[in-house]
Amino acid sequence: MRWAVLGTGQIAHDFTIAMLAAPKEQIVAVASRALERSKEFAEKHNVPKAYGSYDEALEDPEVDIVYVAAATSCHVQLACAALGKKKPVLVEKPAGVNAREVRQLLETAQKNDTFLMEGVWMHFFPVVRALSDAMKRGDIGDITSVHASFGWMNPVDVNPGVEDVTQGGGGLLAVGIYLIHLAMLAFNGAKPEKVEAVGELGPKGGDVRTSMVLGWSGGRQAMLAVSLRDNYAGSAVIYGTKAKISIPFPFLCPTSATVEPYDPKEMPTSISEGLPCAEATTNAAGELISNKFNLINSAGLAYEANRVAADVSQGKKENEHVSHELSLAVIEVMDKVREKIGLCYPADKY
Amino acid sequence: MRWAVLGTGQIAHDFTIAMLAAPKEQIVAVASRALERSKEFAEKHNVPKAYGSYDEALEDPEVDIVYVAAATSCHVQLACAALGKKKPVLVEKPAGVNAREVRQLLETAQKNDTFLMEGVWMHFFPVVRALSDAMKRGDIGDITSVHASFGWMNPVDVNPGVEDVTQGGGGLLAVGIYLIHLAMLAFNGAKPEKVEAVGELGPKGGDVRTSMVLGWSGGRQAMLAVSLRDNYAGSAVIYGTKAKISIPFPFLCPTSATVEPYDPKEMPTSISEGLPCAEATTNAAGELISNKFNLINSAGLAYEANRVAADVSQGKKENEHVSHELSLAVIEVMDKVREKIGLCYPADKY
Repeated sequence: MRWAVLGTGQIAHDFTIAMLAAPKEQIVAVASRALERSKEFAEKHNVPKAYGSYDEALEDPEVDIVYVAAATSCHVQLACAALGKKKPVLVEKPAGVNAREVRQLLETAQKNDTFLMEGVWMHFFPVVRALSDAMKRGDIGDITSVHASFGWMNPVDVNPGVEDVTQGGGGLLAVGIYLIHLAMLAFNGAKPEKVEAVGELGPKGGDVRTSMVLGWSGGRQAMLAVSLRDNYAGSAVIYGTKAKISIPFPFLCPTSATVEPYDPKEMPTSISEGLPCAEATTNAAGELISNKFNLINSAGLAYEANRVAADVSQGKKENEHVSHELSLAVIEVMDKVREKIGLCYPADKY
Repeated sequence: MRWAVLGTGQIAHDFTIAMLAAPKEQIVAVASRALERSKEFAEKHNVPKAYGSYDEALEDPEVDIVYVAAATSCHVQLACAALGKKKPVLVEKPAGVNAREVRQLLETAQKNDTFLMEGVWMHFFPVVRALSDAMKRGDIGDITSVHASFGWMNPVDVNPGVEDVTQGGGGLLAVGIYLIHLAMLAFNGAKPEKVEAVGELGPKGGDVRTSMVLGWSGGRQAMLAVSLRDNYAGSAVIYGTKAKISIPFPFLCPTSATVEPYDPKEMPTSISEGLPCAEATTNAAGELISNKFNLINSAGLAYEANRVAADVSQGKKENEHVSHELSLAVIEVMDKVREKIGLCYPADKY
């Protein structure tokens, strides 16, 4: 498919590089609000067209599908504009900063009968799919608990946007979303009945350290923490009645995991699957792409893009793993967490 | 010193065996409400005197100090009775099931001007002391977060008391107390300002799975979970601004830990200290004691007993590491957690 990338930030770069490992996918256009930035991006990544406005990209008849990778605070507006042009949309997570925004987006997709998916790429890693299958088969027994964390020390002078509330920043929406997705994956999509949290807001208004406990029926629980101030382990454990799953760092884009049955007569199972080959791929200029990614394991964005392209080709309007219902359920949990920790976005006021 | 052990359960057994590695400490008497049980215990462990009532042990002028190791629901009553006889008291944790009980106990100790300590043995492990020193020296920087869990699958048909609310059971009071002590140790004894939790109560009324998040001033947080239904990792991580501390299973009675500075120019430090020699000690009958403990690393109870005996010999009325103030602060946190998860003890009604 022919993609337009809206935005020229770290994730837009990584997505574009990762596509080198997805031969059927082409980035045909990049757009931003500044033509200079788009041109620079296009030159660097050998993208044919650079636009100085998002609308131009959406009007381009050669664009089959749109990847929204601008600041979080612009996701809904850009995704809705694309859907209005009947362009299928992959919107980077979080799809919106609050449930109202996500609802508006989902309704726009439905109204336009056009494909929409939130880019929670975690779900498309082969290791995650294998773990999901193992859980559905009952290998783990009944899942009782999920423990996970992810944190890093954000260099706030270098990356102020990550925690800037006016850009939809903060640890919860940036990375906490994966913690909640993992727990909901383990509990087969069920919504938590209880949401408790403590959190700290940073100087730019976004949360910089948030610890959460979620409760589901039957005493099932998740204990999750995200930080922009600490190198939290970034690993996850899913406990079941028959076995536990350990996913090492980085659990949100994993290349390995272990299933350990409690019965000492049963052997542990290791699951692993390396990244797509983009890291060892050369770009049009003949340069090796290895080490060109901004973010860890970004080559795995190819898994997501391939799946989305296949869904669109098959005429689907949503993805089975990151359904509209799931996106909405997760943002509703995040709204509850934000209420607990006093985190507000400008969009909350509309 | 000459000790009387009140109670004949698993921990009373382990304490008595551990004393074989504390040559200055002697168990001179054991007491329970059933003379038969006391006699059996005394015979097994070569204890000179067996009493069929707790009062007899407290009246015994050859008893210098009392270890209260009966069911949790009896701790306050027995410890107060011993203090009333001016006997120094080491009371197994939790000292009481609620803050009211613990306050009553502390007041009784003060009124009788007699030594009292809650047996939170974790604090006396050399590894924990070394970590505490490292934190006080500033090796870890400012502590920001504590992540810890502990869980096991309680065979409820074998150990119903562990989760029986009428006996002061439940995961929070049985083991969750260590999670909170570790967090308060990391935050230098400060009380948390926020306490949030989700929990599940078992068929005997005690909590069988509890996840907590605690918040301190300045965005400091702890994320803690205890279970009687899951093999939670039982490890802990303390994150600071300069380094992190990892304490492997079992964090509550550790023989090793690692301090990892974030600065790659600084080397990680390993701290380790094996258990006292009781595991390889023979009892009076010449039998090897190794593998005789009911609970993990119980040989380390000798650290605690030695310290308590030294405190009492030096005329102290409380211990510096497990102060009366700390015991009260922790039970106040546990009261708040219980309120959140709807866990009540019979003693709450008085």
